[in-house]
Amino acid sequence: MPRYALLVEYDGTPFVGWQRQTNGLSVQQVLEEAAAPLNGGVLPDTVASGRTDAGVHAEGQVVGIELQADLPPERVREALNTRSRPHPVSVLSVAIPPEEWSARFSARGRAYRYRILNRRPRPALEIGRVWHVPQRLDAAAMHEAAQMLLGKHDFSAYRAAACQAKDALRTLDRLDISRFGEEVVIHTAARSFLHHQVRNMVGTLVEVGLGRRPVSWPRQILDGRNRTRAGQTAPPDGLCFLRAEYPEPLDWC
Amino acid sequence: MPRYALLVEYDGTPFVGWQRQTNGLSVQQVLEEAAAPLNGGVLPDTVASGRTDAGVHAEGQVVGIELQADLPPERVREALNTRSRPHPVSVLSVAIPPEEWSARFSARGRAYRYRILNRRPRPALEIGRVWHVPQRLDAAAMHEAAQMLLGKHDFSAYRAAACQAKDALRTLDRLDISRFGEEVVIHTAARSFLHHQVRNMVGTLVEVGLGRRPVSWPRQILDGRNRTRAGQTAPPDGLCFLRAEYPEPLDWC
Repeated sequence: MPRYALLVEYDGTPFVGWQRQTNGLSVQQVLEEAAAPLNGGVLPDTVASGRTDAGVHAEGQVVGIELQADLPPERVREALNTRSRPHPVSVLSVAIPPEEWSARFSARGRAYRYRILNRRPRPALEIGRVWHVPQRLDAAAMHEAAQMLLGKHDFSAYRAAACQAKDALRTLDRLDISRFGEEVVIHTAARSFLHHQVRNMVGTLVEVGLGRRPVSWPRQILDGRNRTRAGQTAPPDGLCFLRAEYPEPLDWC
Repeated sequence: MPRYALLVEYDGTPFVGWQRQTNGLSVQQVLEEAAAPLNGGVLPDTVASGRTDAGVHAEGQVVGIELQADLPPERVREALNTRSRPHPVSVLSVAIPPEEWSARFSARGRAYRYRILNRRPRPALEIGRVWHVPQRLDAAAMHEAAQMLLGKHDFSAYRAAACQAKDALRTLDRLDISRFGEEVVIHTAARSFLHHQVRNMVGTLVEVGLGRRPVSWPRQILDGRNRTRAGQTAPPDGLCFLRAEYPEPLDWC
């Protein structure tokens, strides 16, 4: 059966997350129901590069899907975008992936952005898109602390209690923190992340930004491998899945 | 009674517009109800620099308000932001205006931004914040056409049928159109605008961007002074009130 790769944008606010669940609507369900008419009326299976949590957004989620219909990529995109209305899910582009390709297991890199609105007044225009931290953050101190987390480590201290990964060994390639006016923006990249890893790192670095903990603290927490010692899990609102990278770049059209 | 100037951000999506109306919730009503406890329990009167329509947003609306309470500006801001929850309205800053100051009549300049999402797939993350135009726009042609609208003219062709202004003579100071990736962004500024003037100019310029009309057409429409000849009124979603300027700059704190 023909296989397609989808590049997908979504607003995570109204969803229980990427993955199908019994307690509410997921991005996966919206896409699979939109695709069923291209699959003989049967719900197809989809696999995402990153299984985002409830409230987490995506600008470039990559989804693998197998369909009975053999169509040009543009036709698949148009059909899915017409049928997924009015949900805030949009297929930006479709590619024909190489054989044996998996959106999840072939990915060699994943990139996320986390946005903090760092001003006293609460957000109005960016509700649901940022974490509002009213006290002034020292972004330079956060960046300095973040650099000590780069490289290959056991990230047990930064994984969710519910994390299902077999081991916590991950290689963090990028964790950059910059201020842009009222926003403090975190960019991070790795081959893969543990469940809640980005949000736990952000919550811990904010303790440094607020001056409650020294710059060395997030690394100490890492070395201690004890989840209960790290900072809070930052809310999902500020997190956005930006892109996934594959050894053979997909030919999006 | 003490008078205050408020710098206000809001998401226009859930509102009938700035102004109080009987058919739904307005930004004005949210602010006046939030301010009543600072005014002896009585609803205060507010005046906005620009009376935005339903669905139009603001990053820097300026509002004048008179209150019985004599408080430091920061206290007014905090009280209003606490009491206006959970509506997407946030007071960014408060100033003590000069005597005889009016948010509306003292303003010497107003600036708006209009965002068009110019790509084939519909928006997911920017629903309600952009006008989605799926066909490719020639932003350079739009900019060229826009420059012919600058200066002092009778803008009758670009005013709403319901516009209540006595005359249609306005001076357009800026109308810049640029492409930023998938977005075509319009920045405009004038001492004041007619009702729907920005949205009518945008709707008319888009006809040029689509290649349906020549670059000279928006100016011909202006000279004809006939509203029924111009392009469609662009939807409110893409429009945002950015700021108002006063001869004596306000001391925001």
